Amino acid sequence: MVYRAPKDAWLHKTASRLLERTPDLLRANAEDMRAAEANDIRGAMLDRLRLTEKRIADMAEGLRQVAALPDPVGEVREGSYRPNGLEIRKLSVPLGVILFIYEARPNVTLDAAALCVKSGNAVILRGGKEAIHSNTILYEILTETLAASGLPANVVRMVATTDREAVGHLLRLPQYIDLAIPRGGPSLIERVVRDARMPVLKHYMGNCHIYVDRAADLEMAERIVVNAKCQRPAVCNAVESLLIHEEVAAGFLPRLGDTLGRLGVEIRGCARTRELTASAVSATEADYAAEYGDLIVSIKVVPDLDSAVDHIHRYGSQHTEAIVTGDIHAADRFVRSVDSSAVMVNASTRFNDGFELGLGAEIGISTDKFHARGPCGLRELTTTKYVVRGEGHIRE
Amino acid sequence: MVYRAPKDAWLHKTASRLLERTPDLLRANAEDMRAAEANDIRGAMLDRLRLTEKRIADMAEGLRQVAALPDPVGEVREGSYRPNGLEIRKLSVPLGVILFIYEARPNVTLDAAALCVKSGNAVILRGGKEAIHSNTILYEILTETLAASGLPANVVRMVATTDREAVGHLLRLPQYIDLAIPRGGPSLIERVVRDARMPVLKHYMGNCHIYVDRAADLEMAERIVVNAKCQRPAVCNAVESLLIHEEVAAGFLPRLGDTLGRLGVEIRGCARTRELTASAVSATEADYAAEYGDLIVSIKVVPDLDSAVDHIHRYGSQHTEAIVTGDIHAADRFVRSVDSSAVMVNASTRFNDGFELGLGAEIGISTDKFHARGPCGLRELTTTKYVVRGEGHIRE
Repeated sequence: MVYRAPKDAWLHKTASRLLERTPDLLRANAEDMRAAEANDIRGAMLDRLRLTEKRIADMAEGLRQVAALPDPVGEVREGSYRPNGLEIRKLSVPLGVILFIYEARPNVTLDAAALCVKSGNAVILRGGKEAIHSNTILYEILTETLAASGLPANVVRMVATTDREAVGHLLRLPQYIDLAIPRGGPSLIERVVRDARMPVLKHYMGNCHIYVDRAADLEMAERIVVNAKCQRPAVCNAVESLLIHEEVAAGFLPRLGDTLGRLGVEIRGCARTRELTASAVSATEADYAAEYGDLIVSIKVVPDLDSAVDHIHRYGSQHTEAIVTGDIHAADRFVRSVDSSAVMVNASTRFNDGFELGLGAEIGISTDKFHARGPCGLRELTTTKYVVRGEGHIRE
Repeated sequence: MVYRAPKDAWLHKTASRLLERTPDLLRANAEDMRAAEANDIRGAMLDRLRLTEKRIADMAEGLRQVAALPDPVGEVREGSYRPNGLEIRKLSVPLGVILFIYEARPNVTLDAAALCVKSGNAVILRGGKEAIHSNTILYEILTETLAASGLPANVVRMVATTDREAVGHLLRLPQYIDLAIPRGGPSLIERVVRDARMPVLKHYMGNCHIYVDRAADLEMAERIVVNAKCQRPAVCNAVESLLIHEEVAAGFLPRLGDTLGRLGVEIRGCARTRELTASAVSATEADYAAEYGDLIVSIKVVPDLDSAVDHIHRYGSQHTEAIVTGDIHAADRFVRSVDSSAVMVNASTRFNDGFELGLGAEIGISTDKFHARGPCGLRELTTTKYVVRGEGHIRE
């Protein structure tokens, strides 16, 4: 177990060293950017690879925020005395060795190292090959500051080769690696799930829904829909599909259609939606199942709450669902019926996020039910052990 | 979600109906026993298959005990208000559908059904083919009492065929089954781990150790060793290996050797153990790695606590380890250094058990670190969802 003080001192030292080495890091990143452009990488992927002075300062600030969080190791999660006098405590302990596989985002290198080490784990980092020059500098910083903080330098290791087979090899070592965390697009995650012989904590699809109930405050509903769709359409907790109660459809959809149209959102809807929304095109089955990650939304008019829930069960990915309603019975029924990592009442789906829910930091949003569900912070990178103290107790 | 009252009423009704149908069950079990004996099944396996009036009464009592436990569904595991006024609650919810695969133990049929349904899950039961007649009666009882209690009868299903391929088929359906729980010998568990495409909660090897420190009360140490080895040698939390500090070896081992010898325990030891214990034979590497499940123990004399910990890291299965010592520093060092599902101080390894730790019931002892570790009760059969309430909150 690695104790608190040196871990937090290490995080602060790493933040300082990162700022000092900004020029080196920008030079290495420029090299990555040139190679990426030469390889025809464009758009969002190129943007995620890019570092700027501001982004590096934000990364340093992120490290200091992790330092400020409580230590998740050594918490007494449960405790009791048994009638025979045995003292039982269930303590949080690190999981062990975590294999972190991600794409060409240099900021994830520091995030992953910070969260894994703060939670007492060792981490093997495997970033996208496009970021190899940036990551090499970051790894130098991490190794140097670990040693300088009195922590074992090998609690953070980086896979030195960009050979694709290296990952396959590591995924077949459950005797050494306790958990694999893939962070990236569906093809990366599918590959890791298929090949891993150890547990995988995965952050998969978010096909999120908002149901606008007949008792909804329609101005509130519009505000929430616009926020959930437009504030950051590429992220997993953005809304992809709207379900509108038929009693409010005529009063809501024409206005919503205008607003979304002005904001550049394409609408794909059912027949009734198309009647009420000038710009809507026809939605297919594939639309209802899609995670667009873009300024597109599917809309369906439904006869009642149960139909909305059925639609969510059929097409949803159990990530985030929201209801907008003033009716407490409708809210309770929706919350009980929908089995998603987060269910929102009168709030944007965008709040399903580790920072917004108060976890302080986030390693991803688990779309699994096992071990951890929804936003995963430091605590989700730990397991527990029972510590039992007796005075010579034996079983009768 | 299935709510409390009907679930507990169902458990009580099942207990009553089980007692009423004792004669039918004994007849069916006699048929299983005849077939088993004809197939040369003997010893412990035959004993586990056998039902008696007393054992059936114990099964009924077990159901009533599960009814008395708190409902693990709907607990608010965490809750907070965020600075923006959002109300966050993390609620426990069922995992979904559990596939329970076990050997020829009819009592496990009721245990598994009781724990899975009480935790709000549906369960698919697949018991050993040797118990098919007993299990058919038990399944009749379960289905009848579910319907009579207003619960959906299909929350408990039994695989009707004893065809081995049926299990393989079910293990490849992660889209319908959320968790597989194998309960039985190593070959069953290895098969399930290999073939399952969904998470597996496994109860694997227990190669448990007791370290007798130089500051141990030697009478206490003997009492604990005898209890941990002899009280029920076949179970996973029985001790298999002893590590004795060299300073107390001469004062402890001759006496312990006599006691264990009288109790019929075979000792396999290192050279120093053999010098001090008349009856000991030589221990091999395989002995130190073995889970005997029998009246055999391996013993090694070690120069210090760190050597004991190293030995445990090398040979142990991270199930249960104990230290006997009067030295608080030794106890703390051992507890911190040994990463097992339970670490005992001055208590028998036999206390690593759901009932003894206060869980009230147990579906198994997880030897994994992911999701649940150590004894698993009702809570470990649940996951969580976040419920977030706002008043029109959007992200800025």
